[in-house]
Amino acid sequence: MNSYRAPIEDLRFLVFDVLGLPESLPAGDALDRELIGQVIEEAGRFCAGVLAPLNASGDREACTLADGEVRTPQGFPAAYKAYCDGGWAALACDPELGGQGLPIVLRAALDEMMAASNHAFTMYPGLAHGAYEALRHHGSDALKARFLPNIVSGEWLATMCLTEPQAGSDLGQIRTMAQPRADGSWSITGTKIFISGGEHDLTENIVHLVLARTPDAPPGTRGLSLFVAPKHLDDGRRSDPRNAIRCEGLEHKMGIRASATCVMRFEQAQGWMIGEPHRGLAAMFLMMNAARLHVGMQGLGHAEAALQLARAYAAERRQGRAGAGAGPDLLSAHPSVQRLIADQRALVEGGRALALWTAYQIDVAETSGDAEARQRADALLALLTPVVKAFLTELGSECADRALQVFGGYGFMVETGVEQHLRDARIARIYEGTNEIQALDLLRRKVLGDGGATLARFVEEMRASADAAPGEASTRADSTRALADELLGLSQWLGTESADDAMLPARVAGEFLRLTGLAALAMMWLKIEAAAARRADDEPMARSKRALSMHYFDYVLPQAHACAAIVRNARTPTDTVFAGEP
Amino acid sequence: MNSYRAPIEDLRFLVFDVLGLPESLPAGDALDRELIGQVIEEAGRFCAGVLAPLNASGDREACTLADGEVRTPQGFPAAYKAYCDGGWAALACDPELGGQGLPIVLRAALDEMMAASNHAFTMYPGLAHGAYEALRHHGSDALKARFLPNIVSGEWLATMCLTEPQAGSDLGQIRTMAQPRADGSWSITGTKIFISGGEHDLTENIVHLVLARTPDAPPGTRGLSLFVAPKHLDDGRRSDPRNAIRCEGLEHKMGIRASATCVMRFEQAQGWMIGEPHRGLAAMFLMMNAARLHVGMQGLGHAEAALQLARAYAAERRQGRAGAGAGPDLLSAHPSVQRLIADQRALVEGGRALALWTAYQIDVAETSGDAEARQRADALLALLTPVVKAFLTELGSECADRALQVFGGYGFMVETGVEQHLRDARIARIYEGTNEIQALDLLRRKVLGDGGATLARFVEEMRASADAAPGEASTRADSTRALADELLGLSQWLGTESADDAMLPARVAGEFLRLTGLAALAMMWLKIEAAAARRADDEPMARSKRALSMHYFDYVLPQAHACAAIVRNARTPTDTVFAGEP
Repeated sequence: MNSYRAPIEDLRFLVFDVLGLPESLPAGDALDRELIGQVIEEAGRFCAGVLAPLNASGDREACTLADGEVRTPQGFPAAYKAYCDGGWAALACDPELGGQGLPIVLRAALDEMMAASNHAFTMYPGLAHGAYEALRHHGSDALKARFLPNIVSGEWLATMCLTEPQAGSDLGQIRTMAQPRADGSWSITGTKIFISGGEHDLTENIVHLVLARTPDAPPGTRGLSLFVAPKHLDDGRRSDPRNAIRCEGLEHKMGIRASATCVMRFEQAQGWMIGEPHRGLAAMFLMMNAARLHVGMQGLGHAEAALQLARAYAAERRQGRAGAGAGPDLLSAHPSVQRLIADQRALVEGGRALALWTAYQIDVAETSGDAEARQRADALLALLTPVVKAFLTELGSECADRALQVFGGYGFMVETGVEQHLRDARIARIYEGTNEIQALDLLRRKVLGDGGATLARFVEEMRASADAAPGEASTRADSTRALADELLGLSQWLGTESADDAMLPARVAGEFLRLTGLAALAMMWLKIEAAAARRADDEPMARSKRALSMHYFDYVLPQAHACAAIVRNARTPTDTVFAGEP
Repeated sequence: MNSYRAPIEDLRFLVFDVLGLPESLPAGDALDRELIGQVIEEAGRFCAGVLAPLNASGDREACTLADGEVRTPQGFPAAYKAYCDGGWAALACDPELGGQGLPIVLRAALDEMMAASNHAFTMYPGLAHGAYEALRHHGSDALKARFLPNIVSGEWLATMCLTEPQAGSDLGQIRTMAQPRADGSWSITGTKIFISGGEHDLTENIVHLVLARTPDAPPGTRGLSLFVAPKHLDDGRRSDPRNAIRCEGLEHKMGIRASATCVMRFEQAQGWMIGEPHRGLAAMFLMMNAARLHVGMQGLGHAEAALQLARAYAAERRQGRAGAGAGPDLLSAHPSVQRLIADQRALVEGGRALALWTAYQIDVAETSGDAEARQRADALLALLTPVVKAFLTELGSECADRALQVFGGYGFMVETGVEQHLRDARIARIYEGTNEIQALDLLRRKVLGDGGATLARFVEEMRASADAAPGEASTRADSTRALADELLGLSQWLGTESADDAMLPARVAGEFLRLTGLAALAMMWLKIEAAAARRADDEPMARSKRALSMHYFDYVLPQAHACAAIVRNARTPTDTVFAGEP
């Protein structure tokens, strides 16, 4: 079943009415409204028309490996060519390097639609952005000249070679070694696993970014350096010599089966160091905000796509009696199905608003001329990046799961397509830092780490949104203010308590993150209501957003009570459960 | 990865210490403790030794259909033979029909272990029990003599042919027709879908129970009659004539891929009516309690099996620093992982107690000589059956999902085995009445339908458990009493509010069911603590149960706050969200 429709109307509403583009962007005068609208529409057309039709077939076929060469599913190479020809690879890249220089907000919108259409496909170009950022900020001029233009155009794809069997979340355990060569380059030896797009047939060359250890390196993460090692040396043409980098296996996975997840063996492969020795991890961290936002958009994409399937099914399938009539009634008339769908809509449309608003903070942080505005955007970004990554990827799984439930028995059948979203969405909660790591990052580093300064910025923003809410949303504004107080109160309590018990925050970091996510969505719904109030009262979009906001506050936000109650119990140790094991 | 270990110690603790078997059973004097212990242990050995090794391979191979014949995965026919030879098919059946007459509690324990080992396999014998009950209670003597002995022994398997493309949850839409024949039998014509074990190579004959409509039947569910139609006529041997029943297709499913889910075509197939005309649904409802409990045990089985995988992994994998040391530390030392695992343990061990206690109510209701005791057990059973079905199957998905998260990236790989539990567990929330239907059954029929009499019995039991809790559990007993009051208060409020708005309960039935499930687990943890207090203080089992009970009340039960808060918002309509669609 392929019926994905890009959420163009909602994106336009969010980008223009809620975020106020282009005027609200520092470099907004270089952009016009019409161009932005066209980009959104074209992106939607590309995703729905080119990527979505390959989603189910890609899952069925998966990738195959023979003699070290990986073949992607039918249609993938042509779709990738269309992606490059459409200029999508270069959308938000620096114009000086051949990019289009459009705002990150639009890249985020594109990322959502791509993931909704074909998550597995997005894994190939998805990591090129990280390579682009690392090379742009840390590469020598020679490396930039050699690699960047082809990465920006999409002619070459890139990988991030981090994980090793013993080093997953814990990169300090990386063992891959880099030995210096006489010519200034390095010989890289080691085995990397879970490498997305480590080998494939989409591009002539593949540019591997590799974390490895030099002979003099200290142990742990402080001893890691970053290298670039291309599949083909010299000019990177197919006819050029192969580097000693080989795909030794493909993983069999629960989902994103059309993405080649490779075991990569480097056997004295030639590479070049990016940036300073032993500063590899710092170079990686630089691109983490964008990468985590990107993963959050994958969660959102699955939630949206699965929701679309469920809504379409509920609007055509008749089963049972919803009310007093004879029936059978449409599923969409049953209150229990309405709950399944309306909860999802409130989460998806609120989540999209949050994600785009977060992306907008990247644009401000990178381009604003006002230091105070940059600082403020940086603080919001620091706080919200782990929230967007973890909360929206959980939302991806939850919404796909609820959407499947709307289908009843048909949802469990492969042909419906909804079960693929549930399988594919699952990985987004693991990679790019597991959601548990995101929660620790939020609570320990961002909230408790700086004495509450970063959280205070966010709480300020929540209160400002409550103050700016329209009159009819006054009870919702009050709830949002109460939630802001609760967040502050809990964080202060956690700060005090953790003085005696350093493990305490880690026990409830997950609930704290979810609470922050629910609070952030409350804030966004107030912003959405304010934007809706500026439209005519009887406009379908305005009416729909008001109804959904009410729904969110009544039927979804009360989850926050559970999160807060659990956080308050954080004093109870969890290790006793393990000590008492029979 | 096949490492399932049957939870023998926990089962013994629950059956003997918490439920007080055999003395607490009406027919307890016919049973001895040693026999019960042996049955549990033998069942565990069979599941772990015979069924579990076929779980991953069965998923990989799946079933195949050629010329109307279905081939199950390698090893399945031999495992099924071992199942029959071990007497497992007949465990809880009537001794007069060749059964062993053991309590339903033991059947439930066996069902959990079978599902944990190999959910797909359980689908074949899983429906024979329903056929057994329907024939036993409603079949003529001739039909009983012809079919029951071979069903009890397991020599023949059975199906339940209910669903049709247009009739899933809504059986009133069934179109399959039955025309009378001159000899008193019937000609059945129609297409049934999602028929588990509709065709396979495990038994010589397959006994189909079919819901169909006679020519004079009124529309809707009141016009359905129940028929039995075997694959082979006459003596049911392979050499006997084939009935006109044909498997026309196998479904491709997200999970339980080794279970043959068939499209079955009846083309003037010969069948015999079971019971009265137009009373087919009543005959089906009779066996629903046992069938729903069985599905609840599947959820529990997945939760247990996935938890075992996660615990084993967390006890051997080292990543990152948990505390102040240099690391890398075991995952089990990280508070965030401890939360993932301890939450699951509290849910699984509490859920197992609830399920077995519910099964025990069936034994009491069926065998007690005391009318008051039977009535009481019937009331608890009526209330708890939808809770066990829905809450424990949700627990199955949730625990498999959390267990996968403990594995990080490895969890997404097929070889780990944990992702199969997540896929397989999903169907249990849909079949045998979707969880939304269970929630409506609980709230509308069981709670609001009889003016609170049934709920009052349950609340009484919660209070009695609180009164009987040991002194050290006094704050937990207080929480349980408060929860009992909350359940009563909410149900009264819902009763009042629904007078004006009949749709209101349906909007929050899911939260009401979850709240009831959380409350039931609180009650069971108090019962468990009372039993643990009767053991020596420093016994590992007693210490472990106390720690887990505390964990449950601090870290899991607060979810009830969210459920209650959402129920209280039930006045807000949900259809406006749909009316306002852009």
